[in-house]
Amino acid sequence: MWAGINSHIKRFANDVAHHTLYQYGQAAISNERILKSVYEFASERASVGPGWLFIETAGGIHSPGPSGTTQADLYAALRCPVVLVGDWKLGGISSTISAFESLKIRGYDVEGIVVFEDDKYGNSDYLKDYFTQRYGLSVTALPMPPPRDHAAGKDKDEASMLSYYLETSRTGAVHDALIRLDNRHNARVKVLENMAADAHQKIWYPFTQQKLLQTNDIVAIDSACGNHFQTLVPESTTVPNIKSLLQPSFDGSASWWTQGLGHGNSSLTLAAAYAAGRYGHVMFAGMIHEPALKLATLILDSVQNPRLSRVFFSDNGSTGMEVAVKMALRAARIRYGWSPDTKIDILGLKGSYHGDTIGTMDCSEPNTYNEKVEWYEGKGVWLDYPQIQCVAGEWQVQVPCEIGADHSQRFSHLSEVFNLERRIARGDHTSYETYITSVVRKHLDGGRKFGALILEPVVLGAGGMELVDPLFQHTLVRVVRQNASLFGSVELPSFPNDDRTWQGLPVVFDEVFTGLYRLGRSTAASFLDVHPDISVHAKLLTGGLVPLCVTLASECIFNSFASEEKSDALLHGHSYTAHAVGCQVAIESLNQLQTMEKTGRWNWAKSNGWIQAGNSIHAGPSQARSQVWSIWPSPLVQWLSLQANSVAGVWALGSVLAIHLHAADGSGYTSAAAEGLRKRLLSGAETGPGKSWNVHSRVLGNVLYIMGSQQTTEREVGEISDLLGAALRE
Amino acid sequence: MWAGINSHIKRFANDVAHHTLYQYGQAAISNERILKSVYEFASERASVGPGWLFIETAGGIHSPGPSGTTQADLYAALRCPVVLVGDWKLGGISSTISAFESLKIRGYDVEGIVVFEDDKYGNSDYLKDYFTQRYGLSVTALPMPPPRDHAAGKDKDEASMLSYYLETSRTGAVHDALIRLDNRHNARVKVLENMAADAHQKIWYPFTQQKLLQTNDIVAIDSACGNHFQTLVPESTTVPNIKSLLQPSFDGSASWWTQGLGHGNSSLTLAAAYAAGRYGHVMFAGMIHEPALKLATLILDSVQNPRLSRVFFSDNGSTGMEVAVKMALRAARIRYGWSPDTKIDILGLKGSYHGDTIGTMDCSEPNTYNEKVEWYEGKGVWLDYPQIQCVAGEWQVQVPCEIGADHSQRFSHLSEVFNLERRIARGDHTSYETYITSVVRKHLDGGRKFGALILEPVVLGAGGMELVDPLFQHTLVRVVRQNASLFGSVELPSFPNDDRTWQGLPVVFDEVFTGLYRLGRSTAASFLDVHPDISVHAKLLTGGLVPLCVTLASECIFNSFASEEKSDALLHGHSYTAHAVGCQVAIESLNQLQTMEKTGRWNWAKSNGWIQAGNSIHAGPSQARSQVWSIWPSPLVQWLSLQANSVAGVWALGSVLAIHLHAADGSGYTSAAAEGLRKRLLSGAETGPGKSWNVHSRVLGNVLYIMGSQQTTEREVGEISDLLGAALRE
Repeated sequence: MWAGINSHIKRFANDVAHHTLYQYGQAAISNERILKSVYEFASERASVGPGWLFIETAGGIHSPGPSGTTQADLYAALRCPVVLVGDWKLGGISSTISAFESLKIRGYDVEGIVVFEDDKYGNSDYLKDYFTQRYGLSVTALPMPPPRDHAAGKDKDEASMLSYYLETSRTGAVHDALIRLDNRHNARVKVLENMAADAHQKIWYPFTQQKLLQTNDIVAIDSACGNHFQTLVPESTTVPNIKSLLQPSFDGSASWWTQGLGHGNSSLTLAAAYAAGRYGHVMFAGMIHEPALKLATLILDSVQNPRLSRVFFSDNGSTGMEVAVKMALRAARIRYGWSPDTKIDILGLKGSYHGDTIGTMDCSEPNTYNEKVEWYEGKGVWLDYPQIQCVAGEWQVQVPCEIGADHSQRFSHLSEVFNLERRIARGDHTSYETYITSVVRKHLDGGRKFGALILEPVVLGAGGMELVDPLFQHTLVRVVRQNASLFGSVELPSFPNDDRTWQGLPVVFDEVFTGLYRLGRSTAASFLDVHPDISVHAKLLTGGLVPLCVTLASECIFNSFASEEKSDALLHGHSYTAHAVGCQVAIESLNQLQTMEKTGRWNWAKSNGWIQAGNSIHAGPSQARSQVWSIWPSPLVQWLSLQANSVAGVWALGSVLAIHLHAADGSGYTSAAAEGLRKRLLSGAETGPGKSWNVHSRVLGNVLYIMGSQQTTEREVGEISDLLGAALRE
Repeated sequence: MWAGINSHIKRFANDVAHHTLYQYGQAAISNERILKSVYEFASERASVGPGWLFIETAGGIHSPGPSGTTQADLYAALRCPVVLVGDWKLGGISSTISAFESLKIRGYDVEGIVVFEDDKYGNSDYLKDYFTQRYGLSVTALPMPPPRDHAAGKDKDEASMLSYYLETSRTGAVHDALIRLDNRHNARVKVLENMAADAHQKIWYPFTQQKLLQTNDIVAIDSACGNHFQTLVPESTTVPNIKSLLQPSFDGSASWWTQGLGHGNSSLTLAAAYAAGRYGHVMFAGMIHEPALKLATLILDSVQNPRLSRVFFSDNGSTGMEVAVKMALRAARIRYGWSPDTKIDILGLKGSYHGDTIGTMDCSEPNTYNEKVEWYEGKGVWLDYPQIQCVAGEWQVQVPCEIGADHSQRFSHLSEVFNLERRIARGDHTSYETYITSVVRKHLDGGRKFGALILEPVVLGAGGMELVDPLFQHTLVRVVRQNASLFGSVELPSFPNDDRTWQGLPVVFDEVFTGLYRLGRSTAASFLDVHPDISVHAKLLTGGLVPLCVTLASECIFNSFASEEKSDALLHGHSYTAHAVGCQVAIESLNQLQTMEKTGRWNWAKSNGWIQAGNSIHAGPSQARSQVWSIWPSPLVQWLSLQANSVAGVWALGSVLAIHLHAADGSGYTSAAAEGLRKRLLSGAETGPGKSWNVHSRVLGNVLYIMGSQQTTEREVGEISDLLGAALRE
């Protein structure tokens, strides 16, 4: 059939350059090859001069392309404006509207609809009203082409077709539709080009000193697909010959740590839309809907923590941590019989960060984020901790002098650091135990009361992308639990003391960033080999689509709020609590992540120098617990750590790569050390005439991190590694 | 064609009861009448005994029904399980997948797909793989029926068809599909019946004393459509003859104050899905995407406040208010040159509530919500205020004795209370001014420093659904602005003093609940005739779909954070900040609300006793400013206020009706006075054999409120009024 189109174009529009995918025949070829072919043809034509380019798809929008993928999915990455050819036949109203919806939910802009006029079904009249009223779209109705008349002979048939084309052009409807397309295209380009300047005037940006922000620092996004944003190429970029308007920009912060399953993931989209259609919103106090209950069951199962049995929903990591703090403090106060006006502190790590609301800010020591906030008042004691880095090709656990050890420990492999059993057997934890016990005792003796131990397990995120020795955090939890009597005396003896009851202090794990496979595992708690009493999960929970957070708690914590008084309840609950859309997306997101784990989707990464010989993926429980891996190959980490002129230390875990740079101006959030490297990655590389590519990464002081999604491919990692290498050698 | 189907069924399955919509011919009839007809037929058949009921739609799923609405939209309210008949012809893969997606985004559960086998196109093979792999759905492939053979005569044609049916039944595929349908139905019912018990075990409910919550207090929701939830009828309900599994439950809390445009609004769904498909998520620091910028422009335009020029995004009202407080305190501290460790308070009203996070809790006086929260510390001075109620048929402004007036003022119409110009001319505000000035002076003299005036304009929501005299709030803002020198001396003279600069204190309006047409107007600020310096909007912003909040600020507030230091910036920003899905939904939501206003959609309500004669919708500016209205008719409010045995006072504004009941146990959040009325509304009314209907409302202490959506109809209001009348007379 495609061959037929080919010859039809030759016959009636022989001045039009064209190309068909028919050449690929029936052999299955990759989507990538198809898109490349389209791109190359387009580039070649564009180099000739301005003009129209039409990609005519075959069959309906969901008809399979040569690769087997349906065309609506196949071409989504191109985000071309669409002229939808409606169906004039019986059932054509339905198939046209549905096709329109399938395109919309993939982010296509349908710019116009064309349909043949037919008196019998009158589809064009209905579709005209429908699309004009609902979407302000114009529907072009064309007269029916002449029927093919084989009997009349080829010449007569051609003459009648030619006269149809001439007639149709004369009426102006096609011409008008083309003008509209042209106008829409220009409008789209104009919007893109003006967005940064408009945003500079109207948006108050998060975490941004806007006095230092220039308009051309603002990246204008057209769309995003897979692991890339499609960003406007800045005016200043001069490329020989023609210039692409857009370029792919690798999403190197996993869209602020939220993205795991690719931008424009159509399964997530459909999950969101299904819940929106089925429910809209369900107010949650005293009600239950299927997505909330299913998600509660799924997340409780997935954390594999026998302590946790209750799910509280909120909207983001910060609110989820506010809930966690309220839960923990109440539990401690009730058990220890403290009066309501008792000053209660928390125990945590220096440099930790738990969110932007004032209550969670109070859970962190004074730092850049909070110290200028008028109502900030740190309410805790913050411990020093040993951190892990690969330095000059060697893994080190760097123990601060406060902890008393006068040297750093060296390891040949990161999994050795994570082999807690072996290290405990060797006594590595004893200096930690001594330090922790002495600090806690000192403050308790000074009259402080603690209501919670709060940790980000393994990685301190916003605090500077630091990898913490898991043995230290493991020891900290153990010290707190084994010395319960230090923290208060139990006045009410009615608490059951089984292994799901909290001991000493409620232990809160903030897994907002570290959990749900970001570090390669379902939970970051599993690296520490301890079970928290309260656990908070967000970000990847909804795969980067809509905000949602769950705070999981043990029955023992839950029961602290039980009373005959309504006012003793946890009086917290945002109006979109457990919103159906978020819950349904989270179910889909968790299912996709779990399937990836089960089907060995990350085996390519594990074998990139991470899983040691004799310590395979199917190793015994002790070895399995110490297995760590990253999408960033172990040899890349080694190489980076050897760039001693600029790099102070490196680590990688899961999809995170953190490069700590030497900072002449001192490290910390306000340092500018990593900014140069970030800009070099952002200026990117040319990949062909007029075609470029870059990496959008983020900086925390002297640390530059690149965070892939859970779907980042080996090839993408390779390309980024090359760019990173070049940028560092510059 | 439908007549043809009719006779076909008669011929080949004459023991099957059937009914066609063909009777309506081509005349346009209402969707309601069609659904009623389906319901009545189903009820009649159900009374005979158990069996299968199939609704065969005509043409494709989006083919127009007899009313002109496409069938996918028309039947969405029924949420029947769907067997999708796939298309075996050319283009059939596409139309089948698209039809499936159009059904999903309307909340239908497609339980199976049936398609004819055809060697030429092989659609059934592709569809089998596609739906099994993606959705775990079973695709039943059926052999092609015999072609119609008119030449062979009617008898032979019938015989061949009959033999096809017999053959198809024998192969078992149809039988298996039916069994699967049956199993799926039973599973669905089982899930619904078990949900409350499961939730009771796993969910930690917001704002709920779970010790007092029984399993059968938890309402199981199957779905929601328009202004109704579809809820499981409790086991205890005994209705003669057969029992409906589900019943419509009027969403009388507007789904916790969020819903305005109906549940399952397909335009909102499509907006969400489009953004999900186009972007997924876009990290927002230093980037801009079209939905965020469009929404910023739209919301700044819609509030019609010349002071506001900047938009900061967060996830919910509570986080948006945290941002507002941070903005205001910094602006005051910088202008007045206070040191960073200065203790700064806020000025507000008693009984106000601004959110559940600890920072926003600190903006409220001690109350039930916060007083048991361990880290709560009220940071402000809270003023008494006069409230408005209709009592015994008369509108009263009830002035507390602290404010010095010894009597309440009476008005014959609510709009008189809102005519600030006339009341100021009359001097109604002088006692307010005296009271406010004396309280503020007293605390300033005592050494307090204030950093913000924070108000919920017109209605205190969570604080007890109280209607505040707008003249009081107007006067409060004026006193603060006209006595700037009281609050601090300006050390830095560089602030421009135009009419967009804040004076005295930054004025923050929490319009999270009151704004965006909830009270009948785009902003609640317009009732007070003042422009805040910071304004917070959420809930209705996204029409009840996903969480999103905007904090709007003036350029003057924004500039307080400008410096050469990054650490002076507003270091706040949740990871889903300005998430594309939320922004796109908000654009659609605002557009729909604005269109409703422009097209006079609420005129039916305005004329229900609210807009006085000579004070029409097209009145002059002064009168227009005082115009107030509600979807709850003025005569209903009058009638309610006369039920003096139970009702202490009533008010209605916009879509809110608040009934203050006499409370023997004292008013306040923990009162149980309104609980009885709530339960009577929830037990509902029978509307036919086995068919019932109820109202899901919420209670705040001794106040029962019913909150409609912005799409609530006059008929719905009438039905609820009847039920309410009956419940109060009981």
